[in-house]
Amino acid sequence: MSTPIDAGYARELDRQDELAHFRDEFVVDDPDLIYLDGNSLGRLPKRSAARVRDVVEREWGRRLIRGWGEGWFTAPQRIGGKIAQLVGAQPDEVIVSDSTTVNFFKLVMAGLRARPGRAKIVTDDLNFPSDVYVLQSALNLAGPESRLEIVRSGDGISASNDALAKAIDDQSALVTLSHTLFKSGAVYDMPLVTEMAHRAGALMLWDLSHSVGAMPIALDQAGVDLAVGCTYKYVNGGPGAPAFLYVRRDLQDSLLNPIWGWFGQKGQFDLKLDYEPSAGATRFLVGTPAMLSLAAIEPGIDLLLEAGLDRLRAKSVKQTEYLIGLWEALLQPLGFSLNSPRDPNRRGSHVSIGHPDALRIDRALIEEMNVLPDFRYPDNIRLGVAPIYTSFAEIHEAVTRICRVMNERLYEKYSTERPEVT
Amino acid sequence: MSTPIDAGYARELDRQDELAHFRDEFVVDDPDLIYLDGNSLGRLPKRSAARVRDVVEREWGRRLIRGWGEGWFTAPQRIGGKIAQLVGAQPDEVIVSDSTTVNFFKLVMAGLRARPGRAKIVTDDLNFPSDVYVLQSALNLAGPESRLEIVRSGDGISASNDALAKAIDDQSALVTLSHTLFKSGAVYDMPLVTEMAHRAGALMLWDLSHSVGAMPIALDQAGVDLAVGCTYKYVNGGPGAPAFLYVRRDLQDSLLNPIWGWFGQKGQFDLKLDYEPSAGATRFLVGTPAMLSLAAIEPGIDLLLEAGLDRLRAKSVKQTEYLIGLWEALLQPLGFSLNSPRDPNRRGSHVSIGHPDALRIDRALIEEMNVLPDFRYPDNIRLGVAPIYTSFAEIHEAVTRICRVMNERLYEKYSTERPEVT
Repeated sequence: MSTPIDAGYARELDRQDELAHFRDEFVVDDPDLIYLDGNSLGRLPKRSAARVRDVVEREWGRRLIRGWGEGWFTAPQRIGGKIAQLVGAQPDEVIVSDSTTVNFFKLVMAGLRARPGRAKIVTDDLNFPSDVYVLQSALNLAGPESRLEIVRSGDGISASNDALAKAIDDQSALVTLSHTLFKSGAVYDMPLVTEMAHRAGALMLWDLSHSVGAMPIALDQAGVDLAVGCTYKYVNGGPGAPAFLYVRRDLQDSLLNPIWGWFGQKGQFDLKLDYEPSAGATRFLVGTPAMLSLAAIEPGIDLLLEAGLDRLRAKSVKQTEYLIGLWEALLQPLGFSLNSPRDPNRRGSHVSIGHPDALRIDRALIEEMNVLPDFRYPDNIRLGVAPIYTSFAEIHEAVTRICRVMNERLYEKYSTERPEVT
Repeated sequence: MSTPIDAGYARELDRQDELAHFRDEFVVDDPDLIYLDGNSLGRLPKRSAARVRDVVEREWGRRLIRGWGEGWFTAPQRIGGKIAQLVGAQPDEVIVSDSTTVNFFKLVMAGLRARPGRAKIVTDDLNFPSDVYVLQSALNLAGPESRLEIVRSGDGISASNDALAKAIDDQSALVTLSHTLFKSGAVYDMPLVTEMAHRAGALMLWDLSHSVGAMPIALDQAGVDLAVGCTYKYVNGGPGAPAFLYVRRDLQDSLLNPIWGWFGQKGQFDLKLDYEPSAGATRFLVGTPAMLSLAAIEPGIDLLLEAGLDRLRAKSVKQTEYLIGLWEALLQPLGFSLNSPRDPNRRGSHVSIGHPDALRIDRALIEEMNVLPDFRYPDNIRLGVAPIYTSFAEIHEAVTRICRVMNERLYEKYSTERPEVT
C-alpha cells in the first residue's frame, strides 16, 4: 500500500466523494475538532435535534396523552421496520426498545429455552464484555448443568473459524458473537458462522452493534435466527438510544421473551391478569418505551437509507484503507502497532492502533490537540470512521496531530493512571 | 359532604392555593383544555423542554462523547438520589434506568433468590397487569415448585388487609403490591402490610408508580425492602421516561440483579470478561441508559421538591375531596358510581367514576368537550389530579362538561367498540 501523505491528497478524495454533502446534515459546530469516535457515539443529525424538539414541545407539551395514539404507541415497530432495511430483514422482524444488553438478555434466554436438552453457549473472548456478562447471568438462571464455552482468539484480533467450529457441537444451544468486534474491528463471516451453528442444530445470535449503519448486513440471506444491535454508534441515535432486536419471522411465535410485560401482551389494554404473548416480534417488548430517546433515532436511520449502505461501505473501506496507509507511512515508525485486520473485507469501520503509551497519548489528543478518538484499556486507541460524516481531511489531520503529540512528546506530562471513565 | 357547586367557589379555592403559581412552570398552551390525565402522562415542565434542548444540542451535539464524563455517566445515581427524597430513602438507595417493568423484573428475581426454599409470591388482583405478568414470567423461570397467590379483592377497590394477612405465610418469599392502585386509586397502608410480610419472613416490594410525586412516601420508616416506580406520571418525566428502583441499603450487597450488564459491573471499563457486581444499588443497572429521556426527568423532580410533598398531598386531598363532592351533587344523579375509596387517607390522587356508557362518554369528552380524562376498560373513567398544576377551576369545569355530555346525550353517536389504544 502506498498512500500519498500530503493533505492535498485528502482534500482531493473529499472532492471526489459523492457522499460528502451528508456531513452538512450533522451538527458540526467546531470545525477544528477531529471526531473519530462515531463508533461509540455518533454525531447529532440536525434533523434529530428538530425531531426531539417537536416530540417534546408539541407532542408531549401540547398533545399530551394523545401522543400515544398519534405515533408513540407504534414507534417500536415503525422504527424497527426502518432498521430492518439496514440489516437485511423484513419490517416485522425488528423492534426497538430497551438497551442492547436487556435485548440481548431476552434473546439469549429465549434461545436457550428453544433448545431444551442442550446445555452449552458458545462465544469468544473478543465479544463485548456486557454480552458475556449476560451469558453468565443466563447460566446463573438456567442452573448448574448449563455452561459457557469462550473460544480464545490467538492474536486478539479475531477468533479463527476453525476454533469456533471445534467449539460448536451437538450440545450447543446457542452461538453468539459480535459481528464486528468492538476492540479490533474485525468482522466475522456471517453466513459461514451462522451455517456452522445451524449444522450443529444451534441457534445463531449476532450482536450487530459495531456493524449496523456502517456496512450492509444481510440477516435474511445468511439465515440468521436472532440479532441485537445498538443505535447510538453508526446509526447516530443519541446517547443511550434504545436498541433493536431481530427475530426471524418463522421463529417469532415459538420463542418466549423471559420478561413478560404489558407492551408484549396480546390485547395490552384488555388489562387481563394472565399473560398471553403478542404475535410476532412485538412479544419482545416489555415496558413503556422511552419515547424521547426512541424518537431521536429515526432521522439518523433515514439519513443512512438516503446515503445507501453500499455507498457508505465503499467509502468506509476507502477511508480505513487510507488511514492504514497513513499508519504505515507515519505511525508505524513512531511505534504504533495495527490492531485491526489488514483485509478490508474482514474489517469494520474503525481502526485500532496500539502503543505502550496509548493511554497518555489519548489524553494528549483530547486535551491539547482537539482530537476525540476512542480508547479501550489498556493500550488501544480506536479511530472510528463514520462514512456518513467523516472526511478524508479529518483522517489526515488526525494522523498529523498524533504525529505532533509523539514528536513533541506532549503525552509525557499525563498520568499513566486511568481516569474514572475511559 | 356538602360542596358548593358554583364555579366561583372553585376560583376562590384557587385564589387561596399557595401552590397555584407552580402551574406557570408547565406548558399550558390551550387554556380551554381540561387535562385530568396526569396520572398517566404528566404535563411538560418548561424547564424540561429547556433541559432536553440543552442535552441534545449542546451536550450531544457539541460535547459529543465527552458528555459521558460530564454528567451522563452518573445520571442514574444522581437523579436517583433526588427521587430518594420523594420516597423517603437515602440517596444511594435509588437508581433510575430501564422501564418500570424491567426494573420490577430485576427486583422480583433478586427477591426470589434471596429467599431460597420459599416458593410463593403474594400479590392481589388489583395490581397493575404488567406487574402480574412479570410475576408469572418469574415463576416460569423459577420452575414448577414456585407459585403465585393472587389475593382477590371483594369490591374491586382494594384488597382487605385480612385477606392479605391470610395469604402471606412462611412459604412466601415475596409480597408485592401497587401502593396506589391504578384503577381505583386506593392506597395500601405501607407500614402495616410491610410489617405483615416481614413477620412471615418475606421481602416486601412496592410498586410506587401511582404514588410517587403525589404524596409523601416513607420507605425507610416503613422498613421497606424493595420498590420500583414510574416517573412519567406525577413526576412529569415525559412519555416512557426511565423508571426508578429502590433497594434498602443493608440488602444491596446481598441481592443479585438477574440481568448482568456492563453498567452494573464493578470496574465497568476494565472490560474484564467475568462479571462482578458493583457495590450498592449500581449493580441493578444493566445497559447504557437512554440519556435524553433520563435527562428529561430531573426538572420535574426539582419542581416537586420545591413545592414540597406535604403541601402537594394536602392540596391533592382537598382537590379529590372537592371532586367527590361534585360527583355526589352532580354526577351520582346522572348514574355515575364512585369507584374510589371515600376515605382520603386511603386514596391517591385520582378519582375513578364508573358508568355503563363510560367508554362513549370518554370519547365524547375527548372529541367534543376538550377534556382529557383517563379511561380503563371496560367502564372506568379516571380523573387524575396532579396537584402541582391542576386547578380547582379545572376540576369544576370537567364536571360541568361531563354533565353537558350526559344532559345533551352527546355520547350516543360514539361506538361502543373500543378503539385500538385505550
